Amino acid sequence: MKPKGFFGSIAPNTTVTFLIKKAITGKDMQDLFANRMKDVHNSFTREILKFTSDPEIISFAGGLPNPKLFPIEEIAEASVKVLKEAGEDVLQYNATEGYLPLRRYIAKRYLKKDGLKISPDEILITNGSQQGLDLTSKTFLNEGDGVILESPSYLGAIQAFSMYRPTFQTIPLLEDGIETNSLRGTLEKSDFKLFYAVPNFQNPSGISYAKEKRIEVAEILKNHNTILVEDDPYSELRFSGTPLPPLNKYLESRSIMLGTFSKTVSPSFRIGWIYAPEWMIEKINIAKQASDLHTSYFTQRVMFQFLSDNDLDSHISKLRDAYKRQRDCMIDAIEEHFPEDVSYIKPEGGMFIWVRLPNGLSSMKLFNIAIKEDVAFVPGEAFYAGEVEKGTLRLNYSSTSEEKIEEGIKRLACIIKDLY
Amino acid sequence: MKPKGFFGSIAPNTTVTFLIKKAITGKDMQDLFANRMKDVHNSFTREILKFTSDPEIISFAGGLPNPKLFPIEEIAEASVKVLKEAGEDVLQYNATEGYLPLRRYIAKRYLKKDGLKISPDEILITNGSQQGLDLTSKTFLNEGDGVILESPSYLGAIQAFSMYRPTFQTIPLLEDGIETNSLRGTLEKSDFKLFYAVPNFQNPSGISYAKEKRIEVAEILKNHNTILVEDDPYSELRFSGTPLPPLNKYLESRSIMLGTFSKTVSPSFRIGWIYAPEWMIEKINIAKQASDLHTSYFTQRVMFQFLSDNDLDSHISKLRDAYKRQRDCMIDAIEEHFPEDVSYIKPEGGMFIWVRLPNGLSSMKLFNIAIKEDVAFVPGEAFYAGEVEKGTLRLNYSSTSEEKIEEGIKRLACIIKDLY
Repeated sequence: MKPKGFFGSIAPNTTVTFLIKKAITGKDMQDLFANRMKDVHNSFTREILKFTSDPEIISFAGGLPNPKLFPIEEIAEASVKVLKEAGEDVLQYNATEGYLPLRRYIAKRYLKKDGLKISPDEILITNGSQQGLDLTSKTFLNEGDGVILESPSYLGAIQAFSMYRPTFQTIPLLEDGIETNSLRGTLEKSDFKLFYAVPNFQNPSGISYAKEKRIEVAEILKNHNTILVEDDPYSELRFSGTPLPPLNKYLESRSIMLGTFSKTVSPSFRIGWIYAPEWMIEKINIAKQASDLHTSYFTQRVMFQFLSDNDLDSHISKLRDAYKRQRDCMIDAIEEHFPEDVSYIKPEGGMFIWVRLPNGLSSMKLFNIAIKEDVAFVPGEAFYAGEVEKGTLRLNYSSTSEEKIEEGIKRLACIIKDLY
Repeated sequence: MKPKGFFGSIAPNTTVTFLIKKAITGKDMQDLFANRMKDVHNSFTREILKFTSDPEIISFAGGLPNPKLFPIEEIAEASVKVLKEAGEDVLQYNATEGYLPLRRYIAKRYLKKDGLKISPDEILITNGSQQGLDLTSKTFLNEGDGVILESPSYLGAIQAFSMYRPTFQTIPLLEDGIETNSLRGTLEKSDFKLFYAVPNFQNPSGISYAKEKRIEVAEILKNHNTILVEDDPYSELRFSGTPLPPLNKYLESRSIMLGTFSKTVSPSFRIGWIYAPEWMIEKINIAKQASDLHTSYFTQRVMFQFLSDNDLDSHISKLRDAYKRQRDCMIDAIEEHFPEDVSYIKPEGGMFIWVRLPNGLSSMKLFNIAIKEDVAFVPGEAFYAGEVEKGTLRLNYSSTSEEKIEEGIKRLACIIKDLY
């Protein structure tokens, strides 16, 4: 894009001052980036996901829903119907907060599922729950503010928060949820703006908080001016055990919940939501408006039409059945092929199994060999904002066929044995 | 959402420490907001737009495309086709940068329309160009960084930038574009990260930069380490005069362009893009990933299918014809009914006419009376980040029928005459 015929095209009556060009170097150009961009690098997971688009590779690396279960025909029908019945409106700009009937649907579902009494005005539609994380950060975080994370934690959340340059404090996850004594001690020591938790089938660990732990965490938080950010993409995907109430149920006004249709209907739609009390949601709405005016109204309308014309519960029960089979298949393979001192956490729902290699074995080393044998996963190191627990790995089972799950685990088992 | 039966539900074996509750007051809660949220208020325009959803009101206030021209059937056909042919993929997660064929389409259109040679890798799909503004800010702005704005300027841009707390410097718009001596002087005096310009049929003023001014501005910018952010939502909507090259054409590597399908196809889709050199787009991509992973892949695929199966140019020529008729109708009405000393700028494209009331008349006062007579517009004051020019108003003609345009202008004329 060199300006061709540049000087020739200046009109004769135009005054152009020819200043001596300052030397603008590559370094100067790099200096233009905001400080927040200097610390971030192309995410490791993103690099890994590049491998996984190769169909030769058996990938346990992604976090993708099983595409065989997408309601393709139903979405096509909903698209046509909504355009036929309300086309002009469906293609126009709309309100920042999102389509009211969709927000009503979400509010009703919280009532049915969790007994939460929510006004649709406490719900804001976002581009997936990732944007919920971004808008929460935008609304609440000054540079240097404290954010408490589970350890390990969801990578997308670490990335979203990082852009606002907070100070992270990590607290270990035990098999029944966060280590509450450590949480209590941390909150006593200094102020934190946010505590970010994924209490159901956490990504990456698969861990769920026990009911007593939910109550205890809520009780601890009540004594502090810290906002709970409860991210709940997976609770609908419970295939064993008893459904548990969200932490939000035990807290009052300093609690935000993030939800999404990405895992229950389609991630491509990018429809998630923030549920927060009105004093918060008003400001979050302003942040949303400044960020992108509103979430695609077309997708909101198609989604609502789909939800109106189909039974979401029966659709979800198909997902649960499939994911249970896939989890069982992976666990059977792990039990059969992995050495006995490799441990893992058996999740009651969601998409991930968290594996710990015995002392000293490196999951990065395992990854580098595995990728040559056409098997991918995410080394656990990616999920720690604080101290890293080496030798951990996240295995996704939801987007791989049972046949390939067994084959992939077998190959990993051989490499692990070689590494001993 | 009081926690009902709260203490009763604690399992007997659970340890709950009952700390003395600190008094957490409303003030403490307000303190939780980030500083960036303390300066912002519910936007005035947003308040105005609430009025305009009332069908009784003749609204010149919005910036909405004419809904009668939306390609409803074609979008329905594209939705069905793409789901039928590639359903599983269409409903899955996808890459942050956006759908490659859509990025290729955009690159080719720049070549055809403006002679710009662009790689699809220099294009990132965003949720409308509003997100382009947010991601540009996120990637480049530290608190206190300098941003140069046209005066008046696009309100959505002021809002997006404001979230990153820059220092604004405004430079007056003349009828042929920005006042270049003032731009030159401003850039000599101190460093600025960004210069934000809407060179075609600007929102709110309808002003376009003359060709010589484009070249002059580019020449000035070349001597400074300042990034041009060229926002171009309207250039396709030119219905008179000669198309002019973008400023970007005269600059090399420190220039960003923002584009959108909101004005040419449908705003509901929220599909826009950033075109920036690779050294920038890599970082902007990271900011996008942290913000919402990717723009709805479903809408990207439907949009690309629509663009593949239909002739965008012939669709746009219908828009041009309609908007020209609507502009002419509004100008005829202004000429006929407004007092002679009310001046206005006649745009060669886009959606807005900028009106100046004669000395001393307040457009806010006019607004307050007009709204009682069921006519709405946006008082110009909303569009100034620096010194306000009172007595200005923005009139939108694209979303109102010719009959109502005439009636609305007549009513405004009566009120203006009463105010004399």
